[in-house]
Amino acid sequence: MASAPTRRGRRPGSPDTRSAILAEARSLFAAQGYAGTSVRAVAAAAGVDAALVHHYFGTKDDLFLAALELPVDPRQLVAPVVEGGPEGAAERFLTVFLSAWDDPAIRPSLLAVARAVMDPAGSKLLSEGFLPVVIQPVGVALGLDRPEHRMTLVASQVVGIILLRYVLAVEPLASMPRDQVVATYAPTLQRYLTGPLP
Amino acid sequence: MASAPTRRGRRPGSPDTRSAILAEARSLFAAQGYAGTSVRAVAAAAGVDAALVHHYFGTKDDLFLAALELPVDPRQLVAPVVEGGPEGAAERFLTVFLSAWDDPAIRPSLLAVARAVMDPAGSKLLSEGFLPVVIQPVGVALGLDRPEHRMTLVASQVVGIILLRYVLAVEPLASMPRDQVVATYAPTLQRYLTGPLP
Repeated sequence: MASAPTRRGRRPGSPDTRSAILAEARSLFAAQGYAGTSVRAVAAAAGVDAALVHHYFGTKDDLFLAALELPVDPRQLVAPVVEGGPEGAAERFLTVFLSAWDDPAIRPSLLAVARAVMDPAGSKLLSEGFLPVVIQPVGVALGLDRPEHRMTLVASQVVGIILLRYVLAVEPLASMPRDQVVATYAPTLQRYLTGPLP
Repeated sequence: MASAPTRRGRRPGSPDTRSAILAEARSLFAAQGYAGTSVRAVAAAAGVDAALVHHYFGTKDDLFLAALELPVDPRQLVAPVVEGGPEGAAERFLTVFLSAWDDPAIRPSLLAVARAVMDPAGSKLLSEGFLPVVIQPVGVALGLDRPEHRMTLVASQVVGIILLRYVLAVEPLASMPRDQVVATYAPTLQRYLTGPLP
């Protein structure tokens, strides 16, 4: 068990402490980005010891994802994409990604996250949080050359799909069967992942 | 000159009247979409005659674009794209589009428009305004099959470029030379315009 000096008098281990840590993490990650936020700074803002933050949330990556309140851990979601190697990765990625978004139990939470990370006011959540923590590691794990470059191109198409199909519900994309969406975008994403690029 | 009954007592032809019409147009287009908003309804909301709205702003399309306060008329911008025909249209479109966005005199206004049309609260501006008024006509003018379908795919990639390169300034896309951005995305957009699609 972690020690927990409670500068503001909160009891360690209470639900209040846990949600206070999450609230401070969310606001620091949004304001200062992933790289600019330390577990120590989150702990200080919440008035607890850094060890308590680790006890509750694990690593800084885990804390970041917890702060986003995702309904699924995207790292588990993309694991099968990575395991299959670069060949066909775009199709597997789109299938996994669209299945999560098309699930009515999951979509509302994903919509809330998408609005938060696309909001210019919270822009560091995407550019300095979601991309380096969730997206770029996929490119590295797949062994791509220029993983950051390629995964940013992937992200530029994926956010457009999210925005038009799910957030704004633009037709005919909003009602397009999932298989057709996968078949439409897989060649684009596969070129961004493994094709020749300027 | 149009006649101008001023129900709320505004003087016809004053700058006040013009900006009142624009403000009402903006709020009606945002709330009810392009199709759901008539010039007559805008005129009534602003307390003027429909003829005065036409006198100031021209057609309903013109009024819509004026309400967006675009620094350039996108229909003039895409004219050379359309004139060249479907072959190479993606590269010409990207060149014209990125030149406007990369112009420091124009970018701030485009950013403001992008934020408005991508905002879920103002979502009808994109899905029921910008797409049918500006984007879909390009597909029709190019003589594409399934123009609405193809231009929606184009839009799904273009909004991603806008969001990552300009709104959120995600690297390496934000600093990538324009030629490289064009060469990167032209094959994607050309396939959406004229390639085989599922």
